[in-house]
Parts: sequence; C-alpha cells; structure tokens
Amino acid sequence: MEAHISLITLGVTDLEKSLAFYRDGLGLPTKGIIGTEFKGDETHPSGALVMFELQQGLILALYPRSELAKDANQPVGVASSTEFSLGHVVNSQQEVDALVQRAKTAGALVTDEPHERPWGIYSGYFQDIDGHLWEIIWNPNEG
Amino acid sequence: MEAHISLITLGVTDLEKSLAFYRDGLGLPTKGIIGTEFKGDETHPSGALVMFELQQGLILALYPRSELAKDANQPVGVASSTEFSLGHVVNSQQEVDALVQRAKTAGALVTDEPHERPWGIYSGYFQDIDGHLWEIIWNPNEG
Repeated sequence: MEAHISLITLGVTDLEKSLAFYRDGLGLPTKGIIGTEFKGDETHPSGALVMFELQQGLILALYPRSELAKDANQPVGVASSTEFSLGHVVNSQQEVDALVQRAKTAGALVTDEPHERPWGIYSGYFQDIDGHLWEIIWNPNEG
Repeated sequence: MEAHISLITLGVTDLEKSLAFYRDGLGLPTKGIIGTEFKGDETHPSGALVMFELQQGLILALYPRSELAKDANQPVGVASSTEFSLGHVVNSQQEVDALVQRAKTAGALVTDEPHERPWGIYSGYFQDIDGHLWEIIWNPNEG
C-alpha cells in the first residue's frame, strides 16, 4: 500500500450546520454542498457532501453519518470523540491560542486549553460541533 | 484557519497489534513505536505512539484511545466506525480489489466489497482492526 491518504471524511449529524462551522466559523474555503443530484433512499446513500481542498490535493469532506453508514454498509455508530484526532500545526503559541478561541466562538467545545506538553509542543484540543477532535499545535523545535 | 492538516491520529486499543496491521499487513513503512521515554500515569498520557510518513509531510499516527483521551482531557469513548473514513486512491479496479483483499488477509473486516458507485467511482470499504473505516477508491474519470 502506498503511503498516501487522499480524503479524510468526517461523519456529521447536520451537513448544513457542520458546513457553517468549518466555512463561516473557521474560514475554510469550499464550494458548499455538492453531489445533491445523487439522491439516496433507505438503503442507498445520498451523494450530497461538502469538500474542503487542503494541501496538495488532500480533501477534507463532511458527510452525514447516516450516509457514510449506508455507503460503508455499516450500522450508524454513536458519536465517540476518542476515535481519532486531526492535528493542525501553526507557527506560534499565539496562533494556537487564537485559533482555539476562534473555534470556541464558532461553537466548538474546548476540551483542553492550550498548554505545553511533555514532548515539547504547545497545543490545545477542541471538539468540532460533531464531537471530532482537533489538536492545534505549535512545535517550537520546528521553528 | 489555513486549509492544512499535518497529522491524522487514530485511536487504537493495542499499539503493537495495530502497528503490525499497518506495517506488516498493509506494508506502510515506519520506525515503529517511538516516544516511549514519555511515561504516563493515570492522568497524564504516555507519549508512546507510531508514526507513518505519508505524502508531503502528512503523518498518520497510531495512539492508544486511553492516551488520546487523557491528552485531550476526554473520557474514553466506545469504538464507533461511522465517525470518519480515510480515502485511499489507487490507479485501477484491480488495485482496489487487491488492496481490499490484502487488508482482509491482514485482519481487516471488509464491510462493503468493491463495486461501482452512482457517482462514478469504483470502491470498497474495510475496517482496520480497531474498527476505523478505509475506502479504497479508483476514479476512472481521473485516469
């Protein structure tokens, strides 16, 4: 398997609200909800989703948990915030503080206020409005 | 917020077993478990984790759910496979089939055998040994 990930898809409860959090709250550019021409039904997933273009072709997508469940042929699971976290690196302690504060203003739950960690980074965690964890990181050893 | 993710951290149950799945089963290169010098305790997380270097500085990390919970100041959640999925793009239908089969041999649970989807891709899903979803994708419209 090539060491490559093209797509990170987050299961969400309400596509419109999660879009608003990331687009309006955090400021990530997007075309909004696309794929609405693919109508789902009780067993087939709808194609409607939101995509954010990250670095070098990496895509962050928002997709309803219910549709991800159908697409993957899985029962819908409960929200569970220790399944994964996404790490976002910034360039200073002040940027960590500012971004965590911005997320909070946008409706995120700050679970761990920024502080220094034993391994030398300064970081804080928040949950997005669907409970997904983000760690905002400054690593002083990387300039 | 800059449109950038540096780190995808997967919560796992047993670091050694999950390392074996990704390194030996799927063939992702890694230095193995690092950070073992950072001993945790009941409230402080251990620093021991596994990192895989993906494209252009993106890191896929494995970290025990128990330690992610402490690091993020969260209770440990249950395993829940519709929280997110990771999309891996390959270059042909045959490569999708082969990689899904390889994951199965390595201990993954194939939840949805590869097939064509309404939006034009050919893909299949599996859960890694911790229940995290991967979608292996070939998009004939992208060559």
